[in-house]
Amino acid sequence: MDSPATLIALLHGPDQPGLVARVAGWIFERGGNILHADQHRDMELGIFFQRIEWEPKGGDHGADTAAFYAFAASLGMKATVLSSAERMRVALFVSKADHCFHDIVLRWKEGELPCELVAVVSNHTELKGIALGYGLPFHHMPLTADTKPAAEAKQVALLRGLDIDLVVLARYMQVLSADFLANLGRPVINIHHSFLPAFAGGKPYHQAHARGVKLIGATAHYATADLDEGPIINQDVARVTHRHGVDDLVRKGRDLEKTVLAQAVRWHLEGRVLVYGNKTVVFD
Amino acid sequence: MDSPATLIALLHGPDQPGLVARVAGWIFERGGNILHADQHRDMELGIFFQRIEWEPKGGDHGADTAAFYAFAASLGMKATVLSSAERMRVALFVSKADHCFHDIVLRWKEGELPCELVAVVSNHTELKGIALGYGLPFHHMPLTADTKPAAEAKQVALLRGLDIDLVVLARYMQVLSADFLANLGRPVINIHHSFLPAFAGGKPYHQAHARGVKLIGATAHYATADLDEGPIINQDVARVTHRHGVDDLVRKGRDLEKTVLAQAVRWHLEGRVLVYGNKTVVFD
Amino acid sequence: MDSPATLIALLHGPDQPGLVARVAGWIFERGGNILHADQHRDMELGIFFQRIEWEPKGGDHGADTAAFYAFAASLGMKATVLSSAERMRVALFVSKADHCFHDIVLRWKEGELPCELVAVVSNHTELKGIALGYGLPFHHMPLTADTKPAAEAKQVALLRGLDIDLVVLARYMQVLSADFLANLGRPVINIHHSFLPAFAGGKPYHQAHARGVKLIGATAHYATADLDEGPIINQDVARVTHRHGVDDLVRKGRDLEKTVLAQAVRWHLEGRVLVYGNKTVVFD
Amino acid sequence: MDSPATLIALLHGPDQPGLVARVAGWIFERGGNILHADQHRDMELGIFFQRIEWEPKGGDHGADTAAFYAFAASLGMKATVLSSAERMRVALFVSKADHCFHDIVLRWKEGELPCELVAVVSNHTELKGIALGYGLPFHHMPLTADTKPAAEAKQVALLRGLDIDLVVLARYMQVLSADFLANLGRPVINIHHSFLPAFAGGKPYHQAHARGVKLIGATAHYATADLDEGPIINQDVARVTHRHGVDDLVRKGRDLEKTVLAQAVRWHLEGRVLVYGNKTVVFD
Repeated sequence: MDSPATLIALLHGPDQPGLVARVAGWIFERGGNILHADQHRDMELGIFFQRIEWEPKGGDHGADTAAFYAFAASLGMKATVLSSAERMRVALFVSKADHCFHDIVLRWKEGELPCELVAVVSNHTELKGIALGYGLPFHHMPLTADTKPAAEAKQVALLRGLDIDLVVLARYMQVLSADFLANLGRPVINIHHSFLPAFAGGKPYHQAHARGVKLIGATAHYATADLDEGPIINQDVARVTHRHGVDDLVRKGRDLEKTVLAQAVRWHLEGRVLVYGNKTVVFD
Repeated sequence: MDSPATLIALLHGPDQPGLVARVAGWIFERGGNILHADQHRDMELGIFFQRIEWEPKGGDHGADTAAFYAFAASLGMKATVLSSAERMRVALFVSKADHCFHDIVLRWKEGELPCELVAVVSNHTELKGIALGYGLPFHHMPLTADTKPAAEAKQVALLRGLDIDLVVLARYMQVLSADFLANLGRPVINIHHSFLPAFAGGKPYHQAHARGVKLIGATAHYATADLDEGPIINQDVARVTHRHGVDDLVRKGRDLEKTVLAQAVRWHLEGRVLVYGNKTVVFD
Repeated sequence: MDSPATLIALLHGPDQPGLVARVAGWIFERGGNILHADQHRDMELGIFFQRIEWEPKGGDHGADTAAFYAFAASLGMKATVLSSAERMRVALFVSKADHCFHDIVLRWKEGELPCELVAVVSNHTELKGIALGYGLPFHHMPLTADTKPAAEAKQVALLRGLDIDLVVLARYMQVLSADFLANLGRPVINIHHSFLPAFAGGKPYHQAHARGVKLIGATAHYATADLDEGPIINQDVARVTHRHGVDDLVRKGRDLEKTVLAQAVRWHLEGRVLVYGNKTVVFD
Repeated sequence: MDSPATLIALLHGPDQPGLVARVAGWIFERGGNILHADQHRDMELGIFFQRIEWEPKGGDHGADTAAFYAFAASLGMKATVLSSAERMRVALFVSKADHCFHDIVLRWKEGELPCELVAVVSNHTELKGIALGYGLPFHHMPLTADTKPAAEAKQVALLRGLDIDLVVLARYMQVLSADFLANLGRPVINIHHSFLPAFAGGKPYHQAHARGVKLIGATAHYATADLDEGPIINQDVARVTHRHGVDDLVRKGRDLEKTVLAQAVRWHLEGRVLVYGNKTVVFD
């Protein structure tokens, strides 16, 4: 669509009276037109959160972005400013399972995910043909327990060289080390195939089947050094019965994994997710 | 809870640049502290909608309310201002079915519905004992096709005498005439036992069963002169199968009717529903 | 409705060819008319499960029941036979929260729960008036850590004296000891206010809020000696956001607790739940 | 999986005592092992419905199938018998939208849909490359109002020549004539992008937006000569708000359309759907 480019600011910090008015006033004085503004207060912690989207006057996004950062700092707030004119650069990490991979790529082609898919990285080669068929560069980066540190260093070098803004683990099935995450310095979204915190760790569908739950789930979260403990972005569930064996849970789970991950990635790309502590504020 | 009293304004009108900033600025200049602000633009129609809630300085809600009305008019906006210190006065209309009636009253006693229940009105006497047991005044107002105009006139007189702000039709089963609605001049929320616009009119569960749908629904909407055509506030559905006869649909539907109606009433009482044309904006 | 009385058999045991035919044939030969028959095979464990409901010829349920037990034993199957002519006798255990209590009683009065409510037991007195208002006997049985063994012994004596078939913990908030469960020898259904196994133990809404999940849940399960580990009968979830504080989770959770518990109790009363190991087969 | 081949019978006809026992007995006597048996009675209409799946002794599916048809006829029942060893032959009809097309094909490749995809038919050429990329034969069969009768005759000839068992309209966007359906003589599953019967006809998302509903839906149904009036197989809905414009409804609707259609096709292929009158019994 031909809607004009906008700036999106996510900011948070200690709550104080007048924040809504001051932010809106700052934009208005510079000739900007606010399209959306959504805020939240965590009453217990006394933190103010805001997502605000506006059309800046003129269109020099660089200058306005820099000015907003300075303004936010003057309020004692931390800010992230995105321009809708600059699409995030995304790398997809995959293993052998292809359902989330197809889903993300097809939504991207449909225009649902405002980003550039610049790399597909895998420790296997099964999805190479599909990636190339979609016109996406494929990087085979195998790793074993022994070679993991070296392989991760190569991955970070690749991602930094490609100036990646976001990594999406589309059923990558490997645990990223704390070093990888620290060295990358970019957000990583993972899809876990259970309703976390239930069934963290491996083989969650087997765990769910063994426990006899009546709902299975999927959870999209930011990867952190603590496995399956990162801030949750999105979750959903589906009903199962005693008739469903593990194979059925896997099949039904694929649909959950696809939609939960795609929605989380979409929210991230649109600047709707703000992390604080181990939780997220999602301005949807 | 002992949160301080707030003012809530719902406003809408022609969109124009700077509205968010001007409204926030106006409140800030008068010493108010904005707690929530949510806005929406209908891009096609060029209409701006806002719900804003703030703690006014001092606490003279009357003066601030009057001033805000004047301010909104100066912006060319229509406004409704509510004070959390003044609970709406609500009349419940019931017939013989008691599930929505119990549900609304029990939620009210639990503190979920910030209002005063000041009257129960029925064309039957079945629920009189329950109403009195809950300590609620019960008004038996029977009507037939012939006596309807006179009965409705009595109802309007009662409701006006009680200074009612809202009428909730908790499965009242009677169609209110256009005259009643016009003379009352207060919003009326109805619960229809189908997913409108499917199965408008009478016996919607029978209609749904005959059509063989796989989901049944319930719809809470503002009553208008056009039966089952008023602005929709809330809807939900539940899954059914070939195993469910009409009796089962009725049973499953009761749960839908209860939760859909209660949520709609709650949203209305909290000043979250803005009607425009035949649609609603719900700032939830 | 005046549907004729039926027998319902739940049976399970080692799978073997011909079970469906033999059970159906046995009923048919005795002149019974099968209304519903549902079966399940656990392929991994090699267990056959069946729920079969039929109108016996004549109507001597006692004789047919005894004969069926003998027949099931001859097949090497464990059986439970219920007669729709004999309603289960149920005791409700409550504490101070009244939402599940009202919900169960009102559904019972509506005819949704085919049972006799013969006792309300509480360690507090807050709900005494409501129970008596509903015409239900109320038993105040306070307990402390010190008096728990004695109090539980009294409870068991009461329940056995009343010939209870089922105990429903409608937010009872006390852990039943293994001795209580063993001495009672009757099933006990509990409602836990989380999506088990996530957030077992105390204050699950606080746990859910701290973890930042995007869905909250409720779980109805049979109580066992292992707290919150019993066979799950029913679960459901509701969506929450960062805007919901613990109070909101509690409010939204009440609706989940009500519907999840009521459905589980209904299934149990209709002879639809078969426990094996730590899981359930629900023939719904 | 290497589970042995089974026969699946769908039968229905006038209810009479002993049907469950007689069908099970017939299979047992011939040495068959019943894996699943599910039945339903429509009490109002006095119709008995059953789906029964068994492993026949020996494995001569042809002989057992013929014998079962004769047996069913002797009971006065109509039957359809499928063999899991013979996969249905399916034609996909598409137009320009590709989401349901990708979804069906990818699920088929994943093994979720037990059938042969033998043809893709379209009145446009946009999806030709994708179809060929998937290794599927593509038939471009354009039509206009004038050429429709001739084009449909060609389509029927093609489908009959390919011995098609099922046609799936994966957002085909053309109305099939009564003649086409009659001449084809094979079931046709369509996906309609609304919660039928609400918003039948064209542009259902526009209709939904105009009405201001809070849920949008999708409906998979068998195509009949009455547009959007055929027997419903599956439906689902998604929540929308005032923030969602028509474009958003279209985007959210795509996910509904995919999952609702795929589930309906899967049920059909597994012999789980029985049509009677204008309704379906789905033995899931």
